[in-house]
Amino acid sequence: MTPRQLTLTSPNRVPTLTEIFRPISRRLSRVDRALRSWPGSSSPVVRRLASGTISKQGKLIRPGILLLITGHLGYRDGLDILLAAAVEGIHQASLIHDDIIDRSDFRRGEQTAMQRFGPDYSLLLGDFFFIRSISSSLSIKDREIPRMLAETARLMIEGEMEELAESYNFNLSRARYLKIIEKKTASLFQTTCRLAGRLGQAGKKEAEALEEYGRNLGLAFQVTDDLLDLVGQPSRTGKPAFSDLKEGRVTLPLILALRKADSSGRRKLTTLLEKIKDGKDEQLWPELLFQLRNAGAFHQAHRQAASFTARAREAAGRLQPSVYRQSLLQLADFVLHREQ
Amino acid sequence: MTPRQLTLTSPNRVPTLTEIFRPISRRLSRVDRALRSWPGSSSPVVRRLASGTISKQGKLIRPGILLLITGHLGYRDGLDILLAAAVEGIHQASLIHDDIIDRSDFRRGEQTAMQRFGPDYSLLLGDFFFIRSISSSLSIKDREIPRMLAETARLMIEGEMEELAESYNFNLSRARYLKIIEKKTASLFQTTCRLAGRLGQAGKKEAEALEEYGRNLGLAFQVTDDLLDLVGQPSRTGKPAFSDLKEGRVTLPLILALRKADSSGRRKLTTLLEKIKDGKDEQLWPELLFQLRNAGAFHQAHRQAASFTARAREAAGRLQPSVYRQSLLQLADFVLHREQ
Repeated sequence: MTPRQLTLTSPNRVPTLTEIFRPISRRLSRVDRALRSWPGSSSPVVRRLASGTISKQGKLIRPGILLLITGHLGYRDGLDILLAAAVEGIHQASLIHDDIIDRSDFRRGEQTAMQRFGPDYSLLLGDFFFIRSISSSLSIKDREIPRMLAETARLMIEGEMEELAESYNFNLSRARYLKIIEKKTASLFQTTCRLAGRLGQAGKKEAEALEEYGRNLGLAFQVTDDLLDLVGQPSRTGKPAFSDLKEGRVTLPLILALRKADSSGRRKLTTLLEKIKDGKDEQLWPELLFQLRNAGAFHQAHRQAASFTARAREAAGRLQPSVYRQSLLQLADFVLHREQ
Repeated sequence: MTPRQLTLTSPNRVPTLTEIFRPISRRLSRVDRALRSWPGSSSPVVRRLASGTISKQGKLIRPGILLLITGHLGYRDGLDILLAAAVEGIHQASLIHDDIIDRSDFRRGEQTAMQRFGPDYSLLLGDFFFIRSISSSLSIKDREIPRMLAETARLMIEGEMEELAESYNFNLSRARYLKIIEKKTASLFQTTCRLAGRLGQAGKKEAEALEEYGRNLGLAFQVTDDLLDLVGQPSRTGKPAFSDLKEGRVTLPLILALRKADSSGRRKLTTLLEKIKDGKDEQLWPELLFQLRNAGAFHQAHRQAASFTARAREAAGRLQPSVYRQSLLQLADFVLHREQ
């Protein structure tokens, strides 16, 4: 078997993140330390809040991707650590603010900043991470880098606003849903790859492949996230089920079921959703899940995610073989099959 | 009379902002337009929210200061418009997030974003303004400029956090209060002056005078803001009275009264404050105001503000005389005597 065949075959056992990030595990710890050092010069209250927020259980997926790519490109200057921390900082900022909007108490099985410190401190803490992330990238000579980071943060915020504006819109189209998750989630994955390519001086074709990898991985990541909200085990995902539904977020499985149904099925489904919306009646959830499953919505959403990861794998497959590329390919499997 | 004597004499009638900003009124309109153009390329929901937030009644004090200084220094390159918008954008972002924390419905007599769009949209809108402000400064060649802006935004956020941590702390010292308002308010005034000096290539002494002006003006601004919360006319200030008290914010008049009182007076005052804190009992407010007035707390706080504006005037007085310097001096009077 050529390495290509090997990596394109779907694995029987999906590797863990620890396995996937093994080639960069030491450098990833440096990112973690860099993040933890951010509040260092700040006042005690900032230090206390920030250190209580940067969880030890953060998956550090985006920094991992960045370091895998700079590793693949043979980059060894150390700025990738700083930039990986900046990317994770933007992600953390957006999580902290999301948790305020969604009133989320748990994430990855741990109390959110929102739950621990309340909305006021969390708001300021998110601000701190946004500003600190962009600020730290300003020490890099290449002026395009902070610009790309700021532009991506802006897109993410816009995506969040658009998502909020579409709450309880049961007519949301698949295309519009994809546009929104592209902004709010995929943009940071794509930018992570773009930044890594820029640092590592990727050639034009490599850079294109990297961005395509990031974008598709990000889209897959969000679709599986939305699936996990409906079918995941809260004990694995570390957050309560149906969070999206409770906030009126219309995600892909819902859109697919509504689209597939005939007019009477659609009426039945929207009536059910309206009831859940008005009363937040948890007794109706099993019925909704049953209808979604019957409509094949979960299967179809999973296929959509699989199609994105296939595109991500195809893009990564265009890179030269390396231990880092192998990890990028495995990461696509992880994103598709993850249970958390 | 020399121009110096003229400007250092306290005026009988405090000039209005329109009068003060007359030398730069056209350029200030350009800042306003620049700010309004920010959401241009964004999605409709961002445009709708942002255009509903950038109030026509914004005082644009910070951009005004920036343009007065670049005017004074003979700078004519146009980047000051962009930078003035960035400074105002950071101020707006922090106001929008403050209004969420304070649950404020009104500011300058207009509904806040918080009241119009709710906390979720306001949160994202504040994020948008923070990121957009720093982002727009990235187009300026001088790399120090975005760094100074980001660093100032970080200080402001830290100041807000520290203030929040001191809520209902009736032992807050005057020194600590001043440290906090220096971060949350004066830092942006100081940075505004520093940025203007940098753009206009101020000499070392000029630059020092400008920063001193900004810092002291900012401190005076916050002290008068805190005074207005207690003694201002809501019909003039455009926001309800006692907002600070309702949020447990211990401001200078309170600190001064507590410091001045003997042990029995202090006990009386803290008992009153504790009652207000627990029950938010509006009937006790007149009694509190009476006690503060009797303790001379308003008078003393005003004198503190006056001492800051005197220092600001002294610093501005070190600049060469010009129509712009005249406005900077008048602005110090405005800040001290403003009723809104």
